[in-house]
Amino acid sequence: MKNLVGAAMFAQSGGPTSVINASAAGVFIEALKQDKITAVYGAAHGIRGVLNEDFYDISKEDMKELELLKYTPSSALGSVRYKLKDAKKDDTDYKRIVEVFKKYNIRYFFYNGGNDSMDTCNKISKYIKKSGWDCNVIGVPKTIDNDLFGTDHCPGYASAAKYIATTIMEVNLDAKVYDTPMVCVIEVMGRNAGWLTAAAALAGHKGLGADLIYLPEVPFDVDKFVQDVKNVCAKKGNKCIAVVSEGIHDKDGKLICETAASNVARDSFGHAQLGGVASILANILKQETGFKTRGIELSLMQRCGAHLASKVDVEETFKAGRQAVKAAVRGVTDKMVVYKRVDDNGKYKCKFSLVNLKLAANTEKTVPLDWIINDGTYVSDEFVKYALPLIQGDAKAPLEDGLPRFAKLKKVQAGK
Amino acid sequence: MKNLVGAAMFAQSGGPTSVINASAAGVFIEALKQDKITAVYGAAHGIRGVLNEDFYDISKEDMKELELLKYTPSSALGSVRYKLKDAKKDDTDYKRIVEVFKKYNIRYFFYNGGNDSMDTCNKISKYIKKSGWDCNVIGVPKTIDNDLFGTDHCPGYASAAKYIATTIMEVNLDAKVYDTPMVCVIEVMGRNAGWLTAAAALAGHKGLGADLIYLPEVPFDVDKFVQDVKNVCAKKGNKCIAVVSEGIHDKDGKLICETAASNVARDSFGHAQLGGVASILANILKQETGFKTRGIELSLMQRCGAHLASKVDVEETFKAGRQAVKAAVRGVTDKMVVYKRVDDNGKYKCKFSLVNLKLAANTEKTVPLDWIINDGTYVSDEFVKYALPLIQGDAKAPLEDGLPRFAKLKKVQAGK
Repeated sequence: MKNLVGAAMFAQSGGPTSVINASAAGVFIEALKQDKITAVYGAAHGIRGVLNEDFYDISKEDMKELELLKYTPSSALGSVRYKLKDAKKDDTDYKRIVEVFKKYNIRYFFYNGGNDSMDTCNKISKYIKKSGWDCNVIGVPKTIDNDLFGTDHCPGYASAAKYIATTIMEVNLDAKVYDTPMVCVIEVMGRNAGWLTAAAALAGHKGLGADLIYLPEVPFDVDKFVQDVKNVCAKKGNKCIAVVSEGIHDKDGKLICETAASNVARDSFGHAQLGGVASILANILKQETGFKTRGIELSLMQRCGAHLASKVDVEETFKAGRQAVKAAVRGVTDKMVVYKRVDDNGKYKCKFSLVNLKLAANTEKTVPLDWIINDGTYVSDEFVKYALPLIQGDAKAPLEDGLPRFAKLKKVQAGK
Repeated sequence: MKNLVGAAMFAQSGGPTSVINASAAGVFIEALKQDKITAVYGAAHGIRGVLNEDFYDISKEDMKELELLKYTPSSALGSVRYKLKDAKKDDTDYKRIVEVFKKYNIRYFFYNGGNDSMDTCNKISKYIKKSGWDCNVIGVPKTIDNDLFGTDHCPGYASAAKYIATTIMEVNLDAKVYDTPMVCVIEVMGRNAGWLTAAAALAGHKGLGADLIYLPEVPFDVDKFVQDVKNVCAKKGNKCIAVVSEGIHDKDGKLICETAASNVARDSFGHAQLGGVASILANILKQETGFKTRGIELSLMQRCGAHLASKVDVEETFKAGRQAVKAAVRGVTDKMVVYKRVDDNGKYKCKFSLVNLKLAANTEKTVPLDWIINDGTYVSDEFVKYALPLIQGDAKAPLEDGLPRFAKLKKVQAGK
């Protein structure tokens, strides 16, 4: 453990969340307090900002605006989807990172993101150590997908889950308003992990959920789906609400949205760009039942709906940022901050811990298969018990002219 | 003006809104107080509930739940889209309505809805008067479309506008997070009137709006649209957010969602591009620019997102219900409640008035053409000045388990 004095660099990466900036606020506010940290920088667009010497001097920001970051959705510094090459094959980027770190005396590096970003963070951590430049590297978790290993849950998940559950409750009331048949298919994010889709069960817990919930953890069969919906309609006055993950796939692993889309674009990590499966299924159901059907995609709203953020999530996410700084200053490196759930006399409590970056980078946590019930069409109460404590309370930006007053950063350039 | 003693019947009709039940709360709570009103009924599924003698005894409900109706989206009694025939050609339904009114001594009838519902209300009012049965009939306005004649604005509009503006602000931050091109097309409800689409300008007023706004009041040209987006991209780092009404149409009045669908590739099932006009336009833009594009449909959420309701809207809508009852008890009939905007020393204030049902039923109010600027791609500050006072304040259901606690009615049958 090295006791370092120097600058801190923070960067945000991957898909944004409603509360990702709460971690930025935590890192910035804590780092500005620490004597060992001589300057606090925020990189523009993740690791690309480091490579391009494009970063901001956070000490120039107003504290009021840094506080407002807690309630401001999307990555305030800009994000990036940039895959670092294997350093053994091509270490150009890594050399450049070390060069920039030396130039600005960066002794603390905080990288905020999900699986792919933790992979980036892990690679940088390993290379820097090998390079001989002393710099403590800490990963700050973030993902609405809730699929990071080693943590009870992920910063950003609960707010997205709360958005999804609240919206499904409202859509449930709306979709059932007429005395005519209505089938509604709602599509939720989450490629491989069904944590977000399962949030529909929270609405169900309040009596206004979905009749059917399909997670990507188990194979999806379109014919069975049509029959499932027909069965619900027969029992419930020709009304049915089904919630599906964007990542539902058949038994051969082929995405349902891919079997219906001839040309699916892929992002720079090779992931297919998903979406549209709700409309596809709604259309199939219309043909099969003759009923009025509607496909609804919660799209970007589920990950940027900060007006519905969970107070528990905002506070934990803010603390996760502070914990990262405290750990690094203590001399910790090559770790990611994680949440541990503690039973405090029957009440939910969250404690912080650390896990090796390497583990966080390469392991994906999905919904336990024994939580998926009713022949793959619902989730058990264990999920509700798990998720309910996380979505408690409201925490949102103050209103100005009836609309949210989000943080406005000055973004004073500190790089070249 | 007749001074009547008897029962009151209230019914909800047409597409629901976030706050439609606030009018129900207003009617119920006021009617239960009135000495002249001997019973308060709520019809299931609008006029169909009257025809079928399917209605509830509201005196059996808990006052706490009636209060919670203010914050509960969608029509709590159920809605209907049922067009009454011309009484001169077929008065079967009308005869039945009078029969039911006589059977239950209905002396007050309140019908809550938009243009079509006011047409229904107007027809019933005229027929009842001719029939000789004394019953005061009052229309209670409701529509997110804001297109009812004779009122400054419509109950439900402001909450939908607030939902749209807040969501666009959040999506704006999210869509621009990467340092790569991104074009986003957001589709908003409103077939013939662009009031909801114009709400994007409220987000623009806060610096996080749309670059382009297309209302259904003026013809839409796909080629010009593509060029408009390219022009914005050229100026703004290949980023553009365009908001379109679902009702945009070409110069011949043909809907773009129908005409443009043929230009779009079909999927492997042979389905034309599904979803609404946002997906279609996003697909066209992808082909034309090569950029990443995203189509977002605000779908049902914009009309049922009660968690984002405007306090001004909730309070006015509640009062509109009470005003309807007070007017009817005073002896008024054949009118609809309307809002009059008053300048209270530079501050917005709303007063209530009444307009003939016949006028409300047959006239549609669209956005003034001189408010549509920049060659049909934006709206003027006059719109912002008009709409901003309406979206002030938050008013939402209390949280229970971190999720909204909506009203739960007992719905005790009072009909046959």
